[in-house]
Amino acid sequence: MPFNSFGRRFQITTFGESHGPAIGVVIDGCPAKLAITKEEIDKELDKRRPGKSPYTSPREEKDTVEILSGVFEGETTGAPIALLIQNQGVDSSPYEKIKDLYRPGHANFTYLHKYGIFDYRGGGRSSARETAARVAAGAIAKKLLKTWNISCRAYVAEIGGIQVKKLDFTRKSPIFCFDKIAEKKILKLLKKIKEEGDSIGGIIACTATLPVGLGDPVYGKLEALLASAMLSIPASKGFEIGEGFQGAALKGSEHHSSLEVATRKAGGTLGGISTGYPLFFRVAFKPTSSIKIPQETLTIGKEKKVLTLPPNAKHDPCVAIRAVPIVEAMAALVFVDTFLLHQEAKLIDRGVLPFLPHT
Amino acid sequence: MPFNSFGRRFQITTFGESHGPAIGVVIDGCPAKLAITKEEIDKELDKRRPGKSPYTSPREEKDTVEILSGVFEGETTGAPIALLIQNQGVDSSPYEKIKDLYRPGHANFTYLHKYGIFDYRGGGRSSARETAARVAAGAIAKKLLKTWNISCRAYVAEIGGIQVKKLDFTRKSPIFCFDKIAEKKILKLLKKIKEEGDSIGGIIACTATLPVGLGDPVYGKLEALLASAMLSIPASKGFEIGEGFQGAALKGSEHHSSLEVATRKAGGTLGGISTGYPLFFRVAFKPTSSIKIPQETLTIGKEKKVLTLPPNAKHDPCVAIRAVPIVEAMAALVFVDTFLLHQEAKLIDRGVLPFLPHT
Amino acid sequence: MPFNSFGRRFQITTFGESHGPAIGVVIDGCPAKLAITKEEIDKELDKRRPGKSPYTSPREEKDTVEILSGVFEGETTGAPIALLIQNQGVDSSPYEKIKDLYRPGHANFTYLHKYGIFDYRGGGRSSARETAARVAAGAIAKKLLKTWNISCRAYVAEIGGIQVKKLDFTRKSPIFCFDKIAEKKILKLLKKIKEEGDSIGGIIACTATLPVGLGDPVYGKLEALLASAMLSIPASKGFEIGEGFQGAALKGSEHHSSLEVATRKAGGTLGGISTGYPLFFRVAFKPTSSIKIPQETLTIGKEKKVLTLPPNAKHDPCVAIRAVPIVEAMAALVFVDTFLLHQEAKLIDRGVLPFLPHT
Amino acid sequence: MPFNSFGRRFQITTFGESHGPAIGVVIDGCPAKLAITKEEIDKELDKRRPGKSPYTSPREEKDTVEILSGVFEGETTGAPIALLIQNQGVDSSPYEKIKDLYRPGHANFTYLHKYGIFDYRGGGRSSARETAARVAAGAIAKKLLKTWNISCRAYVAEIGGIQVKKLDFTRKSPIFCFDKIAEKKILKLLKKIKEEGDSIGGIIACTATLPVGLGDPVYGKLEALLASAMLSIPASKGFEIGEGFQGAALKGSEHHSSLEVATRKAGGTLGGISTGYPLFFRVAFKPTSSIKIPQETLTIGKEKKVLTLPPNAKHDPCVAIRAVPIVEAMAALVFVDTFLLHQEAKLIDRGVLPFLPHT
Repeated sequence: MPFNSFGRRFQITTFGESHGPAIGVVIDGCPAKLAITKEEIDKELDKRRPGKSPYTSPREEKDTVEILSGVFEGETTGAPIALLIQNQGVDSSPYEKIKDLYRPGHANFTYLHKYGIFDYRGGGRSSARETAARVAAGAIAKKLLKTWNISCRAYVAEIGGIQVKKLDFTRKSPIFCFDKIAEKKILKLLKKIKEEGDSIGGIIACTATLPVGLGDPVYGKLEALLASAMLSIPASKGFEIGEGFQGAALKGSEHHSSLEVATRKAGGTLGGISTGYPLFFRVAFKPTSSIKIPQETLTIGKEKKVLTLPPNAKHDPCVAIRAVPIVEAMAALVFVDTFLLHQEAKLIDRGVLPFLPHT
Repeated sequence: MPFNSFGRRFQITTFGESHGPAIGVVIDGCPAKLAITKEEIDKELDKRRPGKSPYTSPREEKDTVEILSGVFEGETTGAPIALLIQNQGVDSSPYEKIKDLYRPGHANFTYLHKYGIFDYRGGGRSSARETAARVAAGAIAKKLLKTWNISCRAYVAEIGGIQVKKLDFTRKSPIFCFDKIAEKKILKLLKKIKEEGDSIGGIIACTATLPVGLGDPVYGKLEALLASAMLSIPASKGFEIGEGFQGAALKGSEHHSSLEVATRKAGGTLGGISTGYPLFFRVAFKPTSSIKIPQETLTIGKEKKVLTLPPNAKHDPCVAIRAVPIVEAMAALVFVDTFLLHQEAKLIDRGVLPFLPHT
Repeated sequence: MPFNSFGRRFQITTFGESHGPAIGVVIDGCPAKLAITKEEIDKELDKRRPGKSPYTSPREEKDTVEILSGVFEGETTGAPIALLIQNQGVDSSPYEKIKDLYRPGHANFTYLHKYGIFDYRGGGRSSARETAARVAAGAIAKKLLKTWNISCRAYVAEIGGIQVKKLDFTRKSPIFCFDKIAEKKILKLLKKIKEEGDSIGGIIACTATLPVGLGDPVYGKLEALLASAMLSIPASKGFEIGEGFQGAALKGSEHHSSLEVATRKAGGTLGGISTGYPLFFRVAFKPTSSIKIPQETLTIGKEKKVLTLPPNAKHDPCVAIRAVPIVEAMAALVFVDTFLLHQEAKLIDRGVLPFLPHT
Repeated sequence: MPFNSFGRRFQITTFGESHGPAIGVVIDGCPAKLAITKEEIDKELDKRRPGKSPYTSPREEKDTVEILSGVFEGETTGAPIALLIQNQGVDSSPYEKIKDLYRPGHANFTYLHKYGIFDYRGGGRSSARETAARVAAGAIAKKLLKTWNISCRAYVAEIGGIQVKKLDFTRKSPIFCFDKIAEKKILKLLKKIKEEGDSIGGIIACTATLPVGLGDPVYGKLEALLASAMLSIPASKGFEIGEGFQGAALKGSEHHSSLEVATRKAGGTLGGISTGYPLFFRVAFKPTSSIKIPQETLTIGKEKKVLTLPPNAKHDPCVAIRAVPIVEAMAALVFVDTFLLHQEAKLIDRGVLPFLPHT
């Protein structure tokens, strides 16, 4: 029920608006005695702020986290972990001017109809700013996964139709594109898009090495949890696992000629449960909604109007690129959640008294 | 947490295995005084058993529901509604022979690893048989939607690469394909696939007319709930809303040139909340896992083996077609759930004492 | 949210009305490979039907369970377990006559106001009949507890002011009263109460031997979960743990003079978590609402009226006694739930790779 | 599942330790457009710090709240409301000295066994400090209740055996005791208890005026939700509604001689749903665990030891008195939650299109 919570056994609850005093997250259900530092979390937050490429986002958001609770002498205690990120240097004045306009592709239309009130400054609650809290929580999830030898990795698969073909994770990329040739093309495209004041969509892929057994039938299928996680990211419009939409054109004799082929083409799960084979899924993102090209729209009073963003307004030409660490964080949250719940599945079969004696 | 429940405010819990005595569903949170009959539910169940086309499924599953609770004198009472569907004429003998083989694309591999035990008869809990319980619950959801003037419709969008182009919902189709030309091609393809003992994938689309305001930020976005619902259907491998994966190649100036275009291309939601514009999403299904063509696999003891289904084994060449009423049922469940939760959103703004005096 | 579900990790969902075709329960989250038989469940159901004493309940309810799902070849599979109990020999005619009268102490008043409709036959959903489903689920919970060396025991502590003083669990008692002298007095009181057509209240106690660590801060305190469980039983009006209400008159120097005294007087938990010391709590039950003595009431149309039960109406003079197996079942459900969730608490500290390799 | 959350439709999640940087709460599911100010919340927090009486608590905790999110221009927006309370002037040094001692009646014993780690400073997460976050959330709940004409009131019913008899809510009392004669006796007792370095238990009562229909069968009974809420308060050991434990000694002819008597003695609910009659319940609190009188205990290494609090240690002789605003806050949270969920119960019966047109 809680609208701002995600997860079943390992649950996060995020709060905060883009231009309010702060955003944050409460993590509930984290096992005790995990070593974690503020620096480890800040490092993940840095990934949301590429900086190195002038074509992604010019925003000055050097986010840093305060650990308010749940960590004692460098270790988690089992108590809820509250992380706070202050909103620094926000300037709400550009939003004042357009606050009575419905912005194409934005949430102010629906929020106003649903709630009768909208914190329009920087997109308020519907801003992608909220995802910083997810990335902070994801840092803790990823640290847990590391102790369990589980790894996951998100990366750019396609931007504006340019496909990533050869993956080389040893090279560094400011735009999370691990194919040298594709990266060059994409950077060129981003430059052009930015100059035009336009934006472009993209597809993010994610792989993970999981033990067998994560995910739960029937409604807790690993892919159902992942799909829900991914479609909760702003601007995401699609999710597919394994062959996904391409697989819909295949024959059974192609898609599952053998156990191995079938498992690979399924993306690493069978019956919604991880197989031990690599997991693979993709997420589609629409182009950024805010563009500097005039858009036809309506005022709240239903007058026709043309929306033109002021020249000094911030502008991120490709939201998909910034989504890479968010996809990774959300995937990590799902893996920790399913991992913790998996522990009891064969409790009886293990034939051991599973609780710790109180001696 | 409950692994076999779906929904927040309007929640279903399904149970039952393919070859057990019965399957069923408990519906919790249904408003009182909804008129509903056994016949209305059976009618929806009939859609899962097309029958008219020899190319979809030869199974003889004339399902009929027993209403065990929650309905009194033809109306719901607010108490949980339990629906039971007996499993008739099940023959588990074909499964006996292959019970020690991992079946490519099937869940017995993961269930055995996760639980150490598997009801192999007809796929047990992982069988698509479970979806009959969803369709029964969906019948009640659809009746509720009708009282609220909400409609939704699922249909075949693509089978084996053959696309549906012109929709004409006035015509009848045994394979839920409302384009005369495409239907002919698809039936021909199905005939061939069936003769080869092979199977084929497909894409199912769904549209709905919703009031503005359904869905909740942030993790309860309408598309996140729908994605989770759709990826919980057996054999589904992808979900996209609006332009989906195609939109990832578009520019912002194309995708949201105006409020109307942006809303339409987004598939009818903004910020995860319905806009009042038509909703549109698509679901990808892989080809049916069971084929009559030999498949390489392993035994539970890890020996290599070739799996060959016996000639008299049941065989459904295209699981996507049978998924149409399931997609529709799951969508209806999401719409009822979000609708009920939406009622309180503007409670204070309404300026009325919202409770009923006990006079 | 689900109104008819109880539990977090081990969850039950009950359904059914007193005079409908059947009642039942779906158990979700039960570990796989637990050996369980229909007979073991029926044996627990028998405890709800004392029979041996003519003073408790004359009803002929020989309940027997059908296992519809989740058990394969005598063992649980991890899939939801559905248990069905048919309602036999129900005669709704006595309720026809009084269906327009609000019955003092009964739920028809509130159900009618809340839902606008009420299945009046035998109390419908608000009938204590629903608790048979809990006892059936409790049988599975108790079997799990047994494999973990956890035991719990409920018993009569006080009926109509007559207190149980010396507990001797080796003796048998049709009224769950393990004090010979008190039993004699209580049976005499029950005889008198029954002859008068009246009813009487009582207090049920429960003890359990638990490992240290069950229960979760802050809102999942073991006593909070137990209190919620107990107050959900029909006719229960109070819950106390350890010294409970008596402890409110004590000084700190009396209540916690030492670690041992403090733990014992607290009832076996500290900070909401089990200590390994015996758990002890008590539940208060009001007298049965249905009596054969005339009661002043109102009709649905708000006319004053006197309610007189027909001479042949069923009459249970002390609902507290029949509650003993229900208290035990609900406690068992709480213990299994907290036990399963406790397994992950020290996951990292254990220093082992906690998942099963898929070899 | 979330261990630090309470509520179904209106949910709070609290975080923070006694001597950490801050405590706080996230409120999810609050309707939009409720006017609320920081001052209104601070006013409720002040009630936790009576100050006026030298016999309750000498602590200097002038708590003040920061509203981090969910409120825009003085009104709630439907987004999660995060409230932060800084921990000021905490001195952890007294706890350093006793950190290796199990403290009788305290949670460090169980936390250490469950989690293997404990933030011992001021009781860490198990400290009553956490309840300040509940009171802050309760302030918002109470504001909502006010708009719906619902009121609730908690007060001292009994301290150390001294009973409150005549209630006069027009008079002011620093110890929430609205009976002049009882107040005098209790203040005298508190003085003595304080001088002895001892502590004393007490009983808090709560009344509320509710519309008919709040609460849900079967596991969401109003009294089950309230019992769970009350037993989650530190030091609470019992809950009873209406006649409670006293009613267990009554006959049916006394307890429900008429519809009115039965409803009143039941405490205002029937079948777990509010009747419109006044609600009445009581909560038992054990004496404060920390006393200045030496207590026998063990070290973590299991040596016997005598615990003697240092003379300058803080000491609250009666935790029950400080619990009054907490009982009220938790009750308010339950009422808001059940009220919101009640709105849909008769949705269909109302015969109106319940959604807002998006025009």
